[in-house]
Amino acid sequence: MDTEPIALAQALASFEALWSPRVVAHVNDYDVRVAKVEGEHVWHVHDHTDEFFLVLDGELRISLREAGGERTVVLPKGSVFTVPRGTEHRPSAPSGAAILMFEPTGTLSVGDRHEEVPGHVDATTGHALGG
Amino acid sequence: MDTEPIALAQALASFEALWSPRVVAHVNDYDVRVAKVEGEHVWHVHDHTDEFFLVLDGELRISLREAGGERTVVLPKGSVFTVPRGTEHRPSAPSGAAILMFEPTGTLSVGDRHEEVPGHVDATTGHALGG
Repeated sequence: MDTEPIALAQALASFEALWSPRVVAHVNDYDVRVAKVEGEHVWHVHDHTDEFFLVLDGELRISLREAGGERTVVLPKGSVFTVPRGTEHRPSAPSGAAILMFEPTGTLSVGDRHEEVPGHVDATTGHALGG
Repeated sequence: MDTEPIALAQALASFEALWSPRVVAHVNDYDVRVAKVEGEHVWHVHDHTDEFFLVLDGELRISLREAGGERTVVLPKGSVFTVPRGTEHRPSAPSGAAILMFEPTGTLSVGDRHEEVPGHVDATTGHALGG
């Protein structure tokens, strides 16, 4: 357990990699992760968990394939959204963004099912800060 | 499940009450709550869960009674901290703050054990936005 507060700006400044989440806090068996993102992630699904997004800087878009069809939600800085478990989704950020996520420890960034993972996307359960 | 993003600034502008969390999102069986705070909360303990804090605006202090003694961590805007389960703590914000919390649905704002709750503190599991 971390015993001192962590400044998110400092955590974000400590790495450059895009789509490569860093774990900044633990809450029971959940992680709080931050990531720098730009361009497109991949379509993927978390079969067993919701995934929470908070936009710290920039603008994040999340495309969703729902029963009624495909749509994209737009999250400006300071907004939040939960992708329900089982919903295929693809985050993107044409102009770049910094985001915070809550999800169970061990949740893979590309989900349980996904399209082919391109080189610019890190398939990870989250890296340690400074790691 | 909410189907549209929520702007935290707009959520915070929708109520005035201090120390009275509003639920802005659900993540599996967890809540994401926001609160406006100023002055002192009460010493309390969550016996069965960690409690995560992110400071959205202002500065939050959290006093902690640990095995080694009492200390206070200071969280400026944009910083995060997890209070471990079983640790007696008292949030305070002399100059006011807006905070985001992540904790299991049903977690009481004054914990499982607490000192007498003064009138300015709301003992709640979180209110619905707009409620």
